[in-house]
Amino acid sequence: MKQTAKIMNSNKKIKVGIVGVTGYTGQVLLSLLAKHPNVQIHFLGSNASSGQLIQQTLPQFNHLASLPVLQKAEDINYAELDCIFTATPNGFAGKLAEEIIDSKVKLIDLSADLRFKDAQTYDEWYSPLKAPKAKVLESAVYGLPEFNRERIQQAQILANPGCYPTASALGILPLLQDALVTTEDIIIDAKSGTTGAGKKAEESLLFSEITESFSAYKVNKHRHTPEIEQSLQSFSKSENSSRIFVRFTPHLLPIKRGILCTIYLKPVKASLDSIKASFHKHYANKQFVKYVDETPATKHVYASNRCHINASLDERTGILIVTSAIDNLMKGAAGQAVQNFNLMFGLDESLGLI
Amino acid sequence: MKQTAKIMNSNKKIKVGIVGVTGYTGQVLLSLLAKHPNVQIHFLGSNASSGQLIQQTLPQFNHLASLPVLQKAEDINYAELDCIFTATPNGFAGKLAEEIIDSKVKLIDLSADLRFKDAQTYDEWYSPLKAPKAKVLESAVYGLPEFNRERIQQAQILANPGCYPTASALGILPLLQDALVTTEDIIIDAKSGTTGAGKKAEESLLFSEITESFSAYKVNKHRHTPEIEQSLQSFSKSENSSRIFVRFTPHLLPIKRGILCTIYLKPVKASLDSIKASFHKHYANKQFVKYVDETPATKHVYASNRCHINASLDERTGILIVTSAIDNLMKGAAGQAVQNFNLMFGLDESLGLI
Amino acid sequence: MKQTAKIMNSNKKIKVGIVGVTGYTGQVLLSLLAKHPNVQIHFLGSNASSGQLIQQTLPQFNHLASLPVLQKAEDINYAELDCIFTATPNGFAGKLAEEIIDSKVKLIDLSADLRFKDAQTYDEWYSPLKAPKAKVLESAVYGLPEFNRERIQQAQILANPGCYPTASALGILPLLQDALVTTEDIIIDAKSGTTGAGKKAEESLLFSEITESFSAYKVNKHRHTPEIEQSLQSFSKSENSSRIFVRFTPHLLPIKRGILCTIYLKPVKASLDSIKASFHKHYANKQFVKYVDETPATKHVYASNRCHINASLDERTGILIVTSAIDNLMKGAAGQAVQNFNLMFGLDESLGLI
Amino acid sequence: MKQTAKIMNSNKKIKVGIVGVTGYTGQVLLSLLAKHPNVQIHFLGSNASSGQLIQQTLPQFNHLASLPVLQKAEDINYAELDCIFTATPNGFAGKLAEEIIDSKVKLIDLSADLRFKDAQTYDEWYSPLKAPKAKVLESAVYGLPEFNRERIQQAQILANPGCYPTASALGILPLLQDALVTTEDIIIDAKSGTTGAGKKAEESLLFSEITESFSAYKVNKHRHTPEIEQSLQSFSKSENSSRIFVRFTPHLLPIKRGILCTIYLKPVKASLDSIKASFHKHYANKQFVKYVDETPATKHVYASNRCHINASLDERTGILIVTSAIDNLMKGAAGQAVQNFNLMFGLDESLGLI
Repeated sequence: MKQTAKIMNSNKKIKVGIVGVTGYTGQVLLSLLAKHPNVQIHFLGSNASSGQLIQQTLPQFNHLASLPVLQKAEDINYAELDCIFTATPNGFAGKLAEEIIDSKVKLIDLSADLRFKDAQTYDEWYSPLKAPKAKVLESAVYGLPEFNRERIQQAQILANPGCYPTASALGILPLLQDALVTTEDIIIDAKSGTTGAGKKAEESLLFSEITESFSAYKVNKHRHTPEIEQSLQSFSKSENSSRIFVRFTPHLLPIKRGILCTIYLKPVKASLDSIKASFHKHYANKQFVKYVDETPATKHVYASNRCHINASLDERTGILIVTSAIDNLMKGAAGQAVQNFNLMFGLDESLGLI
Repeated sequence: MKQTAKIMNSNKKIKVGIVGVTGYTGQVLLSLLAKHPNVQIHFLGSNASSGQLIQQTLPQFNHLASLPVLQKAEDINYAELDCIFTATPNGFAGKLAEEIIDSKVKLIDLSADLRFKDAQTYDEWYSPLKAPKAKVLESAVYGLPEFNRERIQQAQILANPGCYPTASALGILPLLQDALVTTEDIIIDAKSGTTGAGKKAEESLLFSEITESFSAYKVNKHRHTPEIEQSLQSFSKSENSSRIFVRFTPHLLPIKRGILCTIYLKPVKASLDSIKASFHKHYANKQFVKYVDETPATKHVYASNRCHINASLDERTGILIVTSAIDNLMKGAAGQAVQNFNLMFGLDESLGLI
Repeated sequence: MKQTAKIMNSNKKIKVGIVGVTGYTGQVLLSLLAKHPNVQIHFLGSNASSGQLIQQTLPQFNHLASLPVLQKAEDINYAELDCIFTATPNGFAGKLAEEIIDSKVKLIDLSADLRFKDAQTYDEWYSPLKAPKAKVLESAVYGLPEFNRERIQQAQILANPGCYPTASALGILPLLQDALVTTEDIIIDAKSGTTGAGKKAEESLLFSEITESFSAYKVNKHRHTPEIEQSLQSFSKSENSSRIFVRFTPHLLPIKRGILCTIYLKPVKASLDSIKASFHKHYANKQFVKYVDETPATKHVYASNRCHINASLDERTGILIVTSAIDNLMKGAAGQAVQNFNLMFGLDESLGLI
Repeated sequence: MKQTAKIMNSNKKIKVGIVGVTGYTGQVLLSLLAKHPNVQIHFLGSNASSGQLIQQTLPQFNHLASLPVLQKAEDINYAELDCIFTATPNGFAGKLAEEIIDSKVKLIDLSADLRFKDAQTYDEWYSPLKAPKAKVLESAVYGLPEFNRERIQQAQILANPGCYPTASALGILPLLQDALVTTEDIIIDAKSGTTGAGKKAEESLLFSEITESFSAYKVNKHRHTPEIEQSLQSFSKSENSSRIFVRFTPHLLPIKRGILCTIYLKPVKASLDSIKASFHKHYANKQFVKYVDETPATKHVYASNRCHINASLDERTGILIVTSAIDNLMKGAAGQAVQNFNLMFGLDESLGLI
């Protein structure tokens, strides 16, 4: 990591671009990076509002002076940048990655384009989009820092995990790694706030439709299903990793930010004590993930990069229930992206996040 | 009212059509009319979903059997109907009124098309739309039953009042009629739930934008301003009626249904007792409007056709504060439309509403 | 049912009392019964507000004239009544049932006191309360009309089911009866609005604590667990009924009314078609329960007595996901109580409910 | 300010205590001070949870290590502290101020105890509480930094303004100072989120009561009325300052955090340009208050210490409408308290706030 070292030594700021900055994830990214001590924001991309200052559409940024004018995504000049964050619809970052892979610029993508090792899975679940070239997919590193730190530190192209996959993997992986639960009986009943759906002007996302209601959606069909399975398979260190598959049911909560996953697992000769011990051991020196003694609420992690996890063992029925809570825009998106950024540039992992 | 009398005598159901039935107001109209003992629903118009059954888009109507298939608004055959309800965007009902004015069918319009006596006001505030022909405007009756009952009973074409104008007029008119407040110092600080904005897929109406926030909108520019003024001028019985004008500031509440108007008035030698007496007198035999001793909350009138009104006189500063609460989809739209329907067809005013 | 028949013949109104009328369930009961064509409200009990009119605390009832003054629960004179509804904290109705069991008055209890056939289960889960006498428990009929109609029609003492148990049983029982799912792998991930917790002035139920948050609670410990199991065991018609047990995880939604249960089941050689057919068959002539083709939302059953159910079979993982939605205050409490009342008094099942 | 200077020079941390840390304001204070570079948290007072760590009741503070155990408020040893923040019910800080006035410790009180120069006003509006001794009231400085900076910099005892008074004064004072509006016709229609009411376990503050509803409360009777008037009178620089009085109507919003004041004023020969110019001039170098071109929404200042202000002049009716938005827990309480703390200790005004 010569480049990074140089930047750090010279105290030179890291020049950053954000594409898709006016979306919900992009906004949080901007908030975080604008306060980050080592960052200079050099490019802000927004197709919808190009030519304007972001303050003109989003008055919450009124206090930020000297931000660059919004530009079209395509006008990004990556040679001028040290790092690009893409908070764009699926299909954009894959192409950008193909362009920049031979340059020095680093890419942190918050879309799904670079998450799959297997192009076929992407092609199938994200049809009619097509996966990026194999060279790019091979190069891309899945950015779950608690389980992939070393590769992240070396990454040029980083695939930032989805929100549901983050909350799910953090609640399951310690137990899979320690072989405390079976691989074949995983059920994830997940609930997300509305910013997870993005800033799309759709009837079904109107306040009048969502307030005072609750429902499941895309049952058995949500695109995060294969991502969760790949994540569990990659990091489980289990002999049975190829036989890990999950039933994943997402629901839409009438809240803005927050994900809670209620995960049903079959313990393998495991006591609640051994399960707690597993979580404590795996997250002992992970400052953003914490086992808590009461069932977590999304408000406890609101606007933070933390994940709270609790486990409950039903002796009567032999089921283990793990609940994990994150803020979908933080640990589930922009916060984790900044955590990955810190690791990729040799900075303290929590810089700009606490 | 020969026609009506005949219908009633023969116990024949009144054949009704609803145009714009899938909007928020249309939905509530359908709920009410489907339970109304004297109504047969004969036509349901929805341009967006024509060809379907309404249950296919709106499962809350699953319990209603034998509803007609949704049709294009333009396919309405008014000769087959006794009464048409239009819950359509502005611009539709005015033209329909021009067509049906020489027929026997009655029209109850919930848009703004037929509310203004003065075409110029409509042309100005609803530009680029144009007011309907003078013949239609003259014929149209403003449907505020508590102050215009007799004309409503004779109406063929009825302009159902706007939601803000209803809540405002009910809170002010008794005091203007009794000359207890000045005509020139009326301030209406109004707050509405999101269904008042209709089912428009706009970014600003997304759950993620509205929950946990609050703001004013269209300050000094809302189209209900001239309607409120016309309503107050028409029914005030005041010598100064031409000098009645209002400052009207609407705000958007993070709730689905409900309007609260906080109205600031200058009393003219009026005690709180005389003000209360005025409300009690005017609404003594009006079953849907009630003076209450505590400040009203929108939840107290949720899903009802009622209006709750309270007054508070600040002796220290000489200001009178009237608060009035309605459900914008009921007394502010569909409920009042059914109330008007009952009056127009010689039925008990509260039929299908309690 | 001589008595009932007599009442019906003579067109005499059924004299009804509601104890606990100012709670959320009690309020909805009052709304329904006040509009019920065969009911005369004769007694309203509220310890907190005795001596007042209900309108003084709850202005939403302002339109109801001639209601009796609120009295202490203990002042009920059951000899004057044909039917008592108890919407009281656990512990009250059991004692009342012991008193009235030898009289002619019928009792419909919305608390948990009379739901358990096995006193020991009640004593254990509702400690320190004690189950009512055996004579009462034997006499009490569990009021799930879709599966217990005939006994309900003959009941003097009726135990109205809990909200979670209703939504759960309606989503599972057809499949158990038709042996389409295993008995031992039932997981119910349930989410409820806040009125399910009652009108308790507790910090954890404050708006500031609940809005914009979500969490599980009482994981593995909720009192509805044994009730769900008893209900499934009683009505499953399964040889394995003694081996039916459930994992039940309740969550608190930031909404006022509504329950959604997401139920995970293991199908036994069942296709999705056979599962749908089972629901359609069982609910063919049940007007309040309906299989729907899209995943149900709680808003679709808001303020109605209906239950909407959908099933989804994940071929890939072999799991069946059933979602069922009710309004916890209606089909989950007061609405079902009125449905039971209609059956107990020989009336049309849906009277006052549609 | 010798003491302060010394602290700064030696780079010694400022030792701080927070009394009432588990309330909503106290929690935000703790979040801010825990990240403040010059602060060491030395005492945390909470009568309700004394003896525990704050993380045990409030898991959102799980990431904060090495906080002192919660103690009874009365156990505070002020001699060990440089600064005490009191986020306590009215009645506590007044007594504490009497104790510490002759010591070196500084006090920043977020209750109403020290806000009134006139003991009689406090005694009347806060009865049965009694105002602190005259010596204390004289010494206390009203902490509205945009209008009282110099006195704040010298203060030992600081009265942090109320939330409504802050939003009101910031929207009115520039215009009063520039004589652009009359002093006698001020109407403030104010709307606040529920945290403004504190963490009181009252029925009226339950989620079930507040969601999907809206109402005014304490019309003409809210205790912030005299505080707003005192603030306007103190800082207006107007000849008519004694004749400044306001009509203040608070409303409760179904949101957690946020205040919007809609202020009606009578302009005195003022154009909209002159009004905008006045705001721009007064807030030119005030980083936390900003005139914005669109009507502000509370979400734009959520969790920030900023105030956004907009003005609209209705030429037709001659009324000026000013809207001002703050976060009631930040600029309306804890944020402003930290801003005052920074000024009192000679630090950069925005330290720990941006």
